[in-house]
Amino acid sequence: MDFNSDNAAGVHPAVLEAVAAVSGAHPRGYDADDWSARLDGAFSTLFGTPVRAFAVPSGTAANALGLAACVPTYGGVWCHNEAHIEVDEAGAVGFYTAGATLMLVPSPNGKLTVEALDAAAARRRGDVHQVQPAALSLTQATEAGTVYTPDEVANLSGWAKARGLAVQMDGARFANAVAHLGCSPADVTWKAGVDILSFGCIKNGGMSAEALLFFRPDLAESLPVRRKRAGLMPSKGRFAAAQLLAMIEGGVWLENARASNGAAQTIAAAVPDRLLVPVQANELFLRLTPAERDTLRAQGFSFYDWELSGPDAARFVVRWDQEPQVIAALAAALRAL
Amino acid sequence: MDFNSDNAAGVHPAVLEAVAAVSGAHPRGYDADDWSARLDGAFSTLFGTPVRAFAVPSGTAANALGLAACVPTYGGVWCHNEAHIEVDEAGAVGFYTAGATLMLVPSPNGKLTVEALDAAAARRRGDVHQVQPAALSLTQATEAGTVYTPDEVANLSGWAKARGLAVQMDGARFANAVAHLGCSPADVTWKAGVDILSFGCIKNGGMSAEALLFFRPDLAESLPVRRKRAGLMPSKGRFAAAQLLAMIEGGVWLENARASNGAAQTIAAAVPDRLLVPVQANELFLRLTPAERDTLRAQGFSFYDWELSGPDAARFVVRWDQEPQVIAALAAALRAL
Amino acid sequence: MDFNSDNAAGVHPAVLEAVAAVSGAHPRGYDADDWSARLDGAFSTLFGTPVRAFAVPSGTAANALGLAACVPTYGGVWCHNEAHIEVDEAGAVGFYTAGATLMLVPSPNGKLTVEALDAAAARRRGDVHQVQPAALSLTQATEAGTVYTPDEVANLSGWAKARGLAVQMDGARFANAVAHLGCSPADVTWKAGVDILSFGCIKNGGMSAEALLFFRPDLAESLPVRRKRAGLMPSKGRFAAAQLLAMIEGGVWLENARASNGAAQTIAAAVPDRLLVPVQANELFLRLTPAERDTLRAQGFSFYDWELSGPDAARFVVRWDQEPQVIAALAAALRAL
Amino acid sequence: MDFNSDNAAGVHPAVLEAVAAVSGAHPRGYDADDWSARLDGAFSTLFGTPVRAFAVPSGTAANALGLAACVPTYGGVWCHNEAHIEVDEAGAVGFYTAGATLMLVPSPNGKLTVEALDAAAARRRGDVHQVQPAALSLTQATEAGTVYTPDEVANLSGWAKARGLAVQMDGARFANAVAHLGCSPADVTWKAGVDILSFGCIKNGGMSAEALLFFRPDLAESLPVRRKRAGLMPSKGRFAAAQLLAMIEGGVWLENARASNGAAQTIAAAVPDRLLVPVQANELFLRLTPAERDTLRAQGFSFYDWELSGPDAARFVVRWDQEPQVIAALAAALRAL
Repeated sequence: MDFNSDNAAGVHPAVLEAVAAVSGAHPRGYDADDWSARLDGAFSTLFGTPVRAFAVPSGTAANALGLAACVPTYGGVWCHNEAHIEVDEAGAVGFYTAGATLMLVPSPNGKLTVEALDAAAARRRGDVHQVQPAALSLTQATEAGTVYTPDEVANLSGWAKARGLAVQMDGARFANAVAHLGCSPADVTWKAGVDILSFGCIKNGGMSAEALLFFRPDLAESLPVRRKRAGLMPSKGRFAAAQLLAMIEGGVWLENARASNGAAQTIAAAVPDRLLVPVQANELFLRLTPAERDTLRAQGFSFYDWELSGPDAARFVVRWDQEPQVIAALAAALRAL
Repeated sequence: MDFNSDNAAGVHPAVLEAVAAVSGAHPRGYDADDWSARLDGAFSTLFGTPVRAFAVPSGTAANALGLAACVPTYGGVWCHNEAHIEVDEAGAVGFYTAGATLMLVPSPNGKLTVEALDAAAARRRGDVHQVQPAALSLTQATEAGTVYTPDEVANLSGWAKARGLAVQMDGARFANAVAHLGCSPADVTWKAGVDILSFGCIKNGGMSAEALLFFRPDLAESLPVRRKRAGLMPSKGRFAAAQLLAMIEGGVWLENARASNGAAQTIAAAVPDRLLVPVQANELFLRLTPAERDTLRAQGFSFYDWELSGPDAARFVVRWDQEPQVIAALAAALRAL
Repeated sequence: MDFNSDNAAGVHPAVLEAVAAVSGAHPRGYDADDWSARLDGAFSTLFGTPVRAFAVPSGTAANALGLAACVPTYGGVWCHNEAHIEVDEAGAVGFYTAGATLMLVPSPNGKLTVEALDAAAARRRGDVHQVQPAALSLTQATEAGTVYTPDEVANLSGWAKARGLAVQMDGARFANAVAHLGCSPADVTWKAGVDILSFGCIKNGGMSAEALLFFRPDLAESLPVRRKRAGLMPSKGRFAAAQLLAMIEGGVWLENARASNGAAQTIAAAVPDRLLVPVQANELFLRLTPAERDTLRAQGFSFYDWELSGPDAARFVVRWDQEPQVIAALAAALRAL
Repeated sequence: MDFNSDNAAGVHPAVLEAVAAVSGAHPRGYDADDWSARLDGAFSTLFGTPVRAFAVPSGTAANALGLAACVPTYGGVWCHNEAHIEVDEAGAVGFYTAGATLMLVPSPNGKLTVEALDAAAARRRGDVHQVQPAALSLTQATEAGTVYTPDEVANLSGWAKARGLAVQMDGARFANAVAHLGCSPADVTWKAGVDILSFGCIKNGGMSAEALLFFRPDLAESLPVRRKRAGLMPSKGRFAAAQLLAMIEGGVWLENARASNGAAQTIAAAVPDRLLVPVQANELFLRLTPAERDTLRAQGFSFYDWELSGPDAARFVVRWDQEPQVIAALAAALRAL
């Protein structure tokens, strides 16, 4: 009964079938196949605007490549101090940019605010002796499982645009955010000022491909060579493209996110007084003493302690394919504490 | 009737089945699953020596990461001037090392020799004003479809070791080389002085995972963080590991290479007088005039002109799953020219 | 009456004479001259231990090169959150390492403590998903004009060594620190666990050369090529070496530092109640309202507001060649406020 | 009697005086002084067009920074295979660009030609799998001591511009080239399509500053931060700026180059039949057997064997301040062989 991470999730049958289906074809290598050729169009349809889409093998690669496309080696990236790019990607942005700097901004519940950015910016100078920012990175849903509304994204993007910064979004759980908001994917991205999106699939029923999306084609110009040069361009590109198409063309991405979000709500409803952060996507941060955590683990539940949120905090992540009886069991076990 | 590239090959059923089989499991993410845990052991068994094995998504990534592990940012890599790392990987070694230099050595039939290396080395100085080499990169089978014997590899490695250089092997078609030699994989790698091997699977029946192997554990020390940092560590590592295990644990890698090598010999036997280079793996370089090439293409065969080998040269690559009737058809068509 | 920065200082006559003296010689280029050859020995004598010494053209270059010698591209550097390498060197460490991360630690008065480092380290994990530290960087004297005692340095170095980290010291104002402590330069460097020292000369009477010193020869191995490759190896090396020798062989470095430290004490003694930080080197951080600052500026004094220390703070830096009457004038003006 | 290198040259008295003169001033640090502020104007006057000028401490730094300003990390630089950036700068371009590639072009007498470039370009493809060039680098005077005419530079620049490439010139001995041509510095630079120039001073009577010049202000935009970040921005900028101003404002640069060029002609005239390459600047490449070289060295002359030009070749470099009697002695000794 594993609530450690949605990386433990299985692959949706539609994705497995799509992979098997393209194996029999013998198209040209790299991206010169029909499935790769369809990516731009499929994502453009989904977002209602021209999109340049690239398959990449991980969320780390998507974020770092996307930021390398808009941040020079001598530039900086404003981001939340708990952002995945800071905490869990081993300095990938530094590697892909050969030396750019993450400029960390603290704020509650994993969500950046204009006020927090203003305060951070006020402590820096604009001269040649300091690293100058080139981008703002937002995480949607955030590392705290919260979700930015379209207005919140638009306000933050406006702040960035007024300073000449590009806006990149780490959407490892973008599907969960959209499922929560009930808006169109456009509303919370390009219509709200987002330029580049890491559109996460792997945690949400995919296998080994994420989509890196550009709403501004000028920023994508260097992407093909950067992707190739980093060893991220698959020689059998059809297997990656087919996975992404299977996720979005049949609506699997949203269906799966609704499933995991819904399960998170079921659990949250059982223990509303234990929620350290509002539950909006598929993650729960709960107040649990060490003894309570021991009790749950003794019953077979696994999950992470979450010291970033204090000594009595634990994180539960719900998968799209989490079994209903396991969800019910966790809710019951929490209620019984 | 495509002979452009083995990247057009399908995925072997054993690989597809392995991928489907691990989808139902829900192990920890990244490499904390049973399949990833089995990689080192499986490759150690195959090579008869302790091996550190890492799944990576492309041959370019395997080569560049492997070289980054043994070449400092200020170092150089001796390689053939037609090596894939020079000609077809978009400068990936430069990216992964943040600035190392490929030091190009010309020699016939794609194969480096001690004499060619000596001649190149004699034109360089050992002082601080010149880039100093840190590694020798060999390609097995070579870009010309030729194969180094164990003795040849040992001689080249000996030259490198005497100069303190690491020895890396680009084995995008390593299986074809071993199939040709009829030796054990150990004979032509660590027993012959190879330290790092890009063990190619994708062209040979794999889907989206190559194996990067270290026969010297000291060189592998930085690999986990380099791989993570480059976005090459899959969050659902089991899907990559399962592909590699399916390739090697049942002997698929060697069986497939024998098939494509054998088909190449069938074609070669039809036109022995047209061979520009001895056929040893699954590639043929044939003397064909423009008119002859037109004739073949009009019959539905596709392949690349190969200007590196002169104006009357063409390259044919045979896939592991190339249909017997297509092979026979090409042999017949060539004979009929 | 400028108290903005010691970069406005003149060059000591001994340095100018040394530069003129070597112009007539016509030795080999780069470092193959007698003056460059004497550097290691002269600094070894000064520090009482074998030292590898390199002339570099700026403190930024000294710090970044020194850290690049001990921090891999995927590594991190613990440093104070107001350290010059973070605040005023434009991300040079990121450039020289092609992507390493500064890991910022806040603590009072510009001085790191073991407690502050422990607290910062407790918030990080040791796994492959996070950047792992490889060095500790100390600033001596600190950006707040305070000075670490030998015991304090030893404690911090001990903390670092217990974790396998190298210890680098930014000594842009190292002479001022030694002048304040009255100890030998050895006591507060290698005897206290420091591995690498940026030995500042330029602010303290030099012209265009700083010394980068290694107390551990193993860490210096890559330095010659890194220095050359960065364009920091002068083709007429004798002009840089002669400057450094003139600073240290006649004791100019310590004499000048005593002069600027003494002047700072004179000013401090005039307004003990305005000191925001203890005055130990040649910098003063004073509590001054905007109106008071206006008054001083109207009298012809120039200095920086220092918002890092609050709204009512100003920084005064005293030069080695600051005129006595200007020092007296500032003391009087401050007293009169 | 040293003819090894012009790096052994002394510093012109005007430069030493200028350095001493600025020591007494106490301006703001970095480039906020009157001398630094005058650089752009002085070079604009010299070249008859708006120029952005930056003082840097070495020719290696000038070349690498200049190329980093116009070549992305994934780009390439066409250059002669004996260019200093390839042969003698330890891979500095790779370091400054974090991975760009030098694309080597062989041709006689150190001079690139459109034909040689066409031949090299014909062997490359324009796709994402190959490094794509972003700049052409010319050396003036060349490593073989030859000089491009304005028409030759214009033809090469035209070739580059037609392909969207920037044109950078390594002018370590630019003064010698202009002295030979008798043209204006404008004629052989921006009027002939050059965008960026490393204007060499150090070999030609300077001390520790070279000038990096941009004729296209758009290319210079990132230069201030790149220079700072590399540790190349001096904290006492006036000392570097004053050196450059002393070289150009009084015509010292051209006067010195005429002296060394003239001396080279004197020597060449003594042994016209021994010249392996036409003598146009201050370098001579002479046919000399090992026995002849021994004879000269026994007489006290020092110079380099030059194996790049064959087994019987030696290089003599003449300094601006080479003593007339030494020049006469060498001419006589050569004649006497």
